[in-house]
Amino acid sequence: MSLRILATGGTFDKHYDEIAGKLTFAKSHLPDVIARARITLPTQLEIVAMLDSLDMQDADRSNVLAACQQATEAAIVIIHGTDTMSETAHVIGNAKLAKTIILTGAMIPYEIANSDALFNLGFACGIAQALPHGVYIAMNGQIFNWDNVKKNRTQGVFIQK
Amino acid sequence: MSLRILATGGTFDKHYDEIAGKLTFAKSHLPDVIARARITLPTQLEIVAMLDSLDMQDADRSNVLAACQQATEAAIVIIHGTDTMSETAHVIGNAKLAKTIILTGAMIPYEIANSDALFNLGFACGIAQALPHGVYIAMNGQIFNWDNVKKNRTQGVFIQK
Amino acid sequence: MSLRILATGGTFDKHYDEIAGKLTFAKSHLPDVIARARITLPTQLEIVAMLDSLDMQDADRSNVLAACQQATEAAIVIIHGTDTMSETAHVIGNAKLAKTIILTGAMIPYEIANSDALFNLGFACGIAQALPHGVYIAMNGQIFNWDNVKKNRTQGVFIQK
Amino acid sequence: MSLRILATGGTFDKHYDEIAGKLTFAKSHLPDVIARARITLPTQLEIVAMLDSLDMQDADRSNVLAACQQATEAAIVIIHGTDTMSETAHVIGNAKLAKTIILTGAMIPYEIANSDALFNLGFACGIAQALPHGVYIAMNGQIFNWDNVKKNRTQGVFIQK
Repeated sequence: MSLRILATGGTFDKHYDEIAGKLTFAKSHLPDVIARARITLPTQLEIVAMLDSLDMQDADRSNVLAACQQATEAAIVIIHGTDTMSETAHVIGNAKLAKTIILTGAMIPYEIANSDALFNLGFACGIAQALPHGVYIAMNGQIFNWDNVKKNRTQGVFIQK
Repeated sequence: MSLRILATGGTFDKHYDEIAGKLTFAKSHLPDVIARARITLPTQLEIVAMLDSLDMQDADRSNVLAACQQATEAAIVIIHGTDTMSETAHVIGNAKLAKTIILTGAMIPYEIANSDALFNLGFACGIAQALPHGVYIAMNGQIFNWDNVKKNRTQGVFIQK
Repeated sequence: MSLRILATGGTFDKHYDEIAGKLTFAKSHLPDVIARARITLPTQLEIVAMLDSLDMQDADRSNVLAACQQATEAAIVIIHGTDTMSETAHVIGNAKLAKTIILTGAMIPYEIANSDALFNLGFACGIAQALPHGVYIAMNGQIFNWDNVKKNRTQGVFIQK
Repeated sequence: MSLRILATGGTFDKHYDEIAGKLTFAKSHLPDVIARARITLPTQLEIVAMLDSLDMQDADRSNVLAACQQATEAAIVIIHGTDTMSETAHVIGNAKLAKTIILTGAMIPYEIANSDALFNLGFACGIAQALPHGVYIAMNGQIFNWDNVKKNRTQGVFIQK
């Protein structure tokens, strides 16, 4: 068993730029996060993009799909913005790869107090090793099939469609 | 699907007592941690003990087993000290319950910088919903069967026996 | 000796709104921060505003000045956004009150990793008790007179004019 | 104006050793803390010791005094354990140096949630630049003269004798 983590940006990886005074993207937090998690499973981190998911274009989703196809690992975790996570899940789900692919993200950036980022990454890394091949969204402590989930933006939680 | 989390103490839940100047146990951090994780799955927290796992006696392990037996949920996560986690896993594993039971913990307390606690809890909550019935230890981003795992205390990681 | 802390918002007190996905203002962090600092000096917290300092109007600065005038304490700390901190310092400095008034803030919000907020608040609370009457800006571990300081926005530090 | 910070260990600088499972000393946190504080004042950090203050011997206090005497800076902050902070303050106070010397520390280690360390360091760095020559203890948001302070160990606060 080995694991690939694909970073695409999203709230999880946002960084406060103190000169600009706003949240943007800089270097991914994921190398630090993976070290902190003390993972001993062989794990590869790949930075595919560093984007707010509202800014993701078709070409970006194609890049994520290509990274999944090219991965030699059968267990893949994708860190993604929550706003269009289900759109990207559709693109990958329709490709019917013989892999277990989990999309997750965070409601609060990793570097901000009370963030769910570390919990969600742990959750995703666990089920990536345990579920049958398929594409899933892991948020709010729940496992959703890629074709049966949406974000309730008013409440900030993922629910079944 | 619903989830039960059993707290037993361990490094995960240690608290710095500023009057005594040392790490002890006070109120469990788990209510805060569960809120932070934004879990929408029906989840029950049960405080079974608040102990350093080196201080766990047979009676304590029997209490943990009893809590597993009495739980109405089929998915159970046990927060446990790492030093005797595999002993408790044996007691529960031998009971052959028709449930998926995951033991996890932390190398660094939840309230200390760089803690793995939140990652491990997420990992455990995920696989508790995904694995077949059985008893497992989840540490270091890996899933171990209860009868094939030990802690390497020199390196501070869990490995197969 | 007693101390008054006036909150006006600023980067120090910004909060991540997970539904809107951006930094805004909610309840001030200062009650928690003051408790954390374990201050035993009699200390009053007063919320004058909860604003980005770029949005501060003359009327807001008049409110801050009025709060300084009405305070029964001779030692006052004002938490303020960095972008117009020196403007507000001018308004108060020109009033020539017989009090020691320290303006401070933060380059990174209190609730974000690597924040300077707690250091700056401590610094300001110290010199508010030690300096002669006057109006000062405390940032970057330095004490600036109100009429001889500006923010270098390119580098994100305060310097003498 | 320039500043010297002398590290001696104490609760402020304790580190959780995840292999031993207890709080000990490793590399000082102070280089990170000083960077985080964004201090632009010329500042020298000197590691004099890395000790629990209950383990401090006369020779250790002599080393701290010698570091104060040899410092070219007239403003000195000493990070010290709280339990014998006033003893060390006596040794330095009796030397009647023509410098402003502030002892401070923390009730909760810097790396543990809810720590007062950063506030206390800021407080000390401020008054080191503002008070007349002398030796002071800065804890609980208060300034104490070296010969008129003791720690109330039951309540965990510093008070006048």
